[in-house]
Amino acid sequence: MSRPANRRSENPKIDWHLPTISSSASAHHMSRELFVLTYGALVAQLCKDYEQDEDVNKSLDDMGYSIGVRLVEDFLARSALKKCRSYSETADIIAQGAFQMYLGVTPSVTCTNAKRNEFSLILDKNPLVDFVEELPAARSSLCYCSLLCGAIRGALEAVNLAAEVTFIQDPLKGDEATEIGITFLKKVEDKKKKRNK
Amino acid sequence: MSRPANRRSENPKIDWHLPTISSSASAHHMSRELFVLTYGALVAQLCKDYEQDEDVNKSLDDMGYSIGVRLVEDFLARSALKKCRSYSETADIIAQGAFQMYLGVTPSVTCTNAKRNEFSLILDKNPLVDFVEELPAARSSLCYCSLLCGAIRGALEAVNLAAEVTFIQDPLKGDEATEIGITFLKKVEDKKKKRNK
Repeated sequence: MSRPANRRSENPKIDWHLPTISSSASAHHMSRELFVLTYGALVAQLCKDYEQDEDVNKSLDDMGYSIGVRLVEDFLARSALKKCRSYSETADIIAQGAFQMYLGVTPSVTCTNAKRNEFSLILDKNPLVDFVEELPAARSSLCYCSLLCGAIRGALEAVNLAAEVTFIQDPLKGDEATEIGITFLKKVEDKKKKRNK
Repeated sequence: MSRPANRRSENPKIDWHLPTISSSASAHHMSRELFVLTYGALVAQLCKDYEQDEDVNKSLDDMGYSIGVRLVEDFLARSALKKCRSYSETADIIAQGAFQMYLGVTPSVTCTNAKRNEFSLILDKNPLVDFVEELPAARSSLCYCSLLCGAIRGALEAVNLAAEVTFIQDPLKGDEATEIGITFLKKVEDKKKKRNK
């Protein structure tokens, strides 16, 4: 491919279909403030438990992973989603399907490399930090929203897509926006399918 | 009062007004599965941290208290709520206003004593335990949803209403429904107001 794809906006006007949320889904809705505060309590508890920020980040990411693995089942069950034909489509589904469904926000998506396997999800406002003024001084390496990265990674892996998911920008660390980077790696081998053949 | 009030249903058809959720509120909506799973991760972490179920329950209740104190500000800001004229009205606001807003479910409310200061909120289905099959054998005294009790207590105390809030029935312990008991105590003295006089 010769076209430079750096930072080209990948937002809609393309021909994929947003997951259709089933009509019963509205019954599952809640206002997100309780979630945001409960998440804060979880982070605070982990900060009590672990001295090193890295250990807190790792714990949150691990928890997120398990959550993502379970959430993707719910997501697929509730969305009329066909197999994604490209990483770009997958990134859009995460942003406009999953983020919208589970956090009530829609990040914008940009592709950040020519190989078209690296994407950024960018949020002007991250609801998860709504009640957080700043990181405590002694916690400057805390990646407060690590759980989100883990959740994306877990959900992708559950559908046989390996990915690295990390925070690139974080307003709690002085950045302007919230930017989550997703790098799709090789497909995870589908051991189950192979075994059944 | 001579009328026996035991277990008399306190559900609507009365003349109080549900909080009017501002039109911007829908922007705060999310599907609750992420919350439910994150809450599960919090409980699991506390179970790692504390050997005694009572300590886990106490922690969840304490966290809920802090959350309730902050949530009530959000709730009052988003609802066109007038001062409640009775405990019964307050209980209805908790069920049909706060529970509906923050958990997406509406418990039924019953008054359980003649003095009319004890109420039960009853849920046929508690969304918080959606992904929980049963309590681990070694955790039979765990009050999984303690955070909810703490949150109600915190929110009430923040508006100068002291209350005891406990679980009366819990399906995770074999009960049929989820029942949260609220006993309104004497009003909390409003020290700030007094000081200003």
